[in-house]
Amino acid sequence: MQNLQVVLASRPQGPVTENNFRFVESALPSPKDGEVLVRNLYLSLDPYMRMGMNDGKSYAAPVQLGEVMVGATIGEVVESKDPRFKIGEIVGGRSGWQLFAAADASQLRKVDTRGAPLSTALGVVGMPGVTAWYGLLRIGEPKPGETVVVSAASGAVGSVVGQIARLRGCRAVGIAGGPAKCEYVVNDLGFDACVDYKSDAFESKLRQATPDGIDIYFENVGGRVFDAVLPLFNAFARIPFCGYISEYDDSANYGVQHLRSLLVSRVRLQAFIISEHFDIWDEALADLYAWLIAGKINYRETIAHGLASAPAAFIGMLKGRNLGKQLVKLA
Amino acid sequence: MQNLQVVLASRPQGPVTENNFRFVESALPSPKDGEVLVRNLYLSLDPYMRMGMNDGKSYAAPVQLGEVMVGATIGEVVESKDPRFKIGEIVGGRSGWQLFAAADASQLRKVDTRGAPLSTALGVVGMPGVTAWYGLLRIGEPKPGETVVVSAASGAVGSVVGQIARLRGCRAVGIAGGPAKCEYVVNDLGFDACVDYKSDAFESKLRQATPDGIDIYFENVGGRVFDAVLPLFNAFARIPFCGYISEYDDSANYGVQHLRSLLVSRVRLQAFIISEHFDIWDEALADLYAWLIAGKINYRETIAHGLASAPAAFIGMLKGRNLGKQLVKLA
Repeated sequence: MQNLQVVLASRPQGPVTENNFRFVESALPSPKDGEVLVRNLYLSLDPYMRMGMNDGKSYAAPVQLGEVMVGATIGEVVESKDPRFKIGEIVGGRSGWQLFAAADASQLRKVDTRGAPLSTALGVVGMPGVTAWYGLLRIGEPKPGETVVVSAASGAVGSVVGQIARLRGCRAVGIAGGPAKCEYVVNDLGFDACVDYKSDAFESKLRQATPDGIDIYFENVGGRVFDAVLPLFNAFARIPFCGYISEYDDSANYGVQHLRSLLVSRVRLQAFIISEHFDIWDEALADLYAWLIAGKINYRETIAHGLASAPAAFIGMLKGRNLGKQLVKLA
Repeated sequence: MQNLQVVLASRPQGPVTENNFRFVESALPSPKDGEVLVRNLYLSLDPYMRMGMNDGKSYAAPVQLGEVMVGATIGEVVESKDPRFKIGEIVGGRSGWQLFAAADASQLRKVDTRGAPLSTALGVVGMPGVTAWYGLLRIGEPKPGETVVVSAASGAVGSVVGQIARLRGCRAVGIAGGPAKCEYVVNDLGFDACVDYKSDAFESKLRQATPDGIDIYFENVGGRVFDAVLPLFNAFARIPFCGYISEYDDSANYGVQHLRSLLVSRVRLQAFIISEHFDIWDEALADLYAWLIAGKINYRETIAHGLASAPAAFIGMLKGRNLGKQLVKLA
C-alpha cells in the first residue's frame, strides 16, 4: 500500500490554482516509538490554510515548498507504537493533506462523536464550532435582546455563531453571498435575517436588518463587509475578530473607511485564533454536543470525495462555493 | 459687567472656519440655589469638540446651533448659592466657551494643583493626562521592554503617554507632524524616537524606529498613520483607541488597507472616552501629580489670550499648529 500526499508546489501569485499543488506518492510511513500510523478518513478544508501558502508574516509558520499541506483530520489507527492508542480507534489530529500519517501520539485525541456522524468532529463539534463558541461567548459576551451580526454566515463558523446567538436570546443577522445561502441561513439555521453582500444596496439592506443597531459583530470576512457594518455599531459594541477571508486569496487590499466609528461607539475588538485557547475546548464541546444532540443547532457539509479533489474543493471554498463545512472524504 | 460667549453659528461644511462661530454678549447670569457663578480663567481646547459641531452620530450629543460651545474650564467662584463652594475658590468644570457661567455645584470640583501652575489642571494633570494614564496603563497594560508607539506624540495626551511608557520601562516611539515637533518629543519629552508622518518614506522610517515591532499603539490620529502602524504589530499587541483626529475636520475618509494585520497579530483594540471612566480619576491624578512634582514628566502649553482668540486657536489646533496642550487664557 502506498501513501498519497498533496504538497505545496509553488506559492500563489494572486488566487490559488491547482498548479500550486502537487501530488506525491510514497511508501507508507513507519511509526516510531510514541507514534501512531493513522489512516485519514476526513480532511478539513479551512480558509486559514490559504495564509499558510504565502511566505509573509502570519500567525502560523508558512508551509514550505515541497511540504505536505497542513490541515485537521479525523482518522483511524492502523498501527500503534504508543500504549495510549489501539488499532481501530478513531482519532483527531493535524495530519494534513494525505492518506496516511505517522503521527506523534501526544498530538492526537480520541474522538467520541456521541452518536453524531464522524464528520461533525471537524465541523460543528470541532474546531469551527469551538471557534464560534469562544468568539461569541467569551469575546462577544452576548446579552439577551442584543443584535449579533456575523459574516460568512453560512460557513462552518458563522452558522454556529448565529445559532448560539439565538439560543442566548439575541437577534441574529447573517451576511452571506447570494440568495441561496441567505435562504439557508434564515430557513434552516433560524437566523432572524440574512443580507446578501453581493446584492445592490447591501449597505442599506444591512441597516434595515439591524433596526436596533449592532451590539456584536463576529468578523470572518473583512474589507467591504466590515466597512458596511462599522457605522451601525451601538455604544460598547464588541467584535470577535476571527477571519479576513476577503483578502486571503487576493493581494489587493480594500481600504476600510469607517474606522472612526470604532471610537464613536467605544468598540472593543479582539482578534483570536482558536488554537491558542485549548483550555476552553472541553467546556465548548460539552455545550456544542448538548445542543447538537438536542437538535438545537443544525449544520450542513459540503463533501468532496477523494484526496484528488482537495485542491479544487479548497479553491471553491475560497470563492464561497461551499455551503457549511467543507470536507474531503478520504476513505 | 457683561458675559461674553462663543456660540455655534453654523455647522462646518468641511474644515471649520471662524464663520462657524458667533460672539454673543449678554448679562451676567444669576446663580440659582445649588449653583455657583464662576469666572472662567482657562478654557481647554480639545479635538473632540470638532465632532460635537457636526450633527451626525457621535459619542456626545452635538452642540445645537446658537448654543455655547462646550469645553472644560478652570475658574474662580465669584458668587455661591451652594454651601460646598466659597467665593474665591478655584474650581474645575465644563463651563464652555464663555467668560462666566452659572454652574451646577454638583458638576464642579475643587482644584488643588499642589504647587503646579493652574493651567496644568486642564492638561498634564487634567483630562488629557488622565486619558493617557487610563489608555496606556489600563488598556495597554505595558510590560518592561515592550515598544509603545503613540500618534500625535507632541499633543496633550500623546506627550504624557510616551513619558509614562518610559517610566514603565518601555521603548517609547512617537509619531508627530514636522521636525520641530519630533525634536521636542525626543529632546524634551525623552521619547526614544519620533517619526515625522509628513516626511518622505514615513512607513519605512517607522519600521526602522521599531526594530522589535510594536506591542502597544496608542491611537489618536487614525487614517494613514494607523495604516502604517498595522503591519508592525507583534503578537498580542494592544491598541488603546482614543482619537481619530485625521478625520474630525475633513469629510473625506482614508481607506485603511492593512486591517488583516489585526488578525495576524491577534490584536486587542479598545476604544474609550475618559469621561466614562471617572472611577479611576483620583488614582490617575495621584500618579500624575507625583510624577509632575518629581520632575519625571514634562509638558508644554500653547496659550491663546482672550476668548476672542478661541476660534482661531481651535482651528490651528485641528491643523496641528499647537505644541502640547492648547489653552485659552480668559482672565
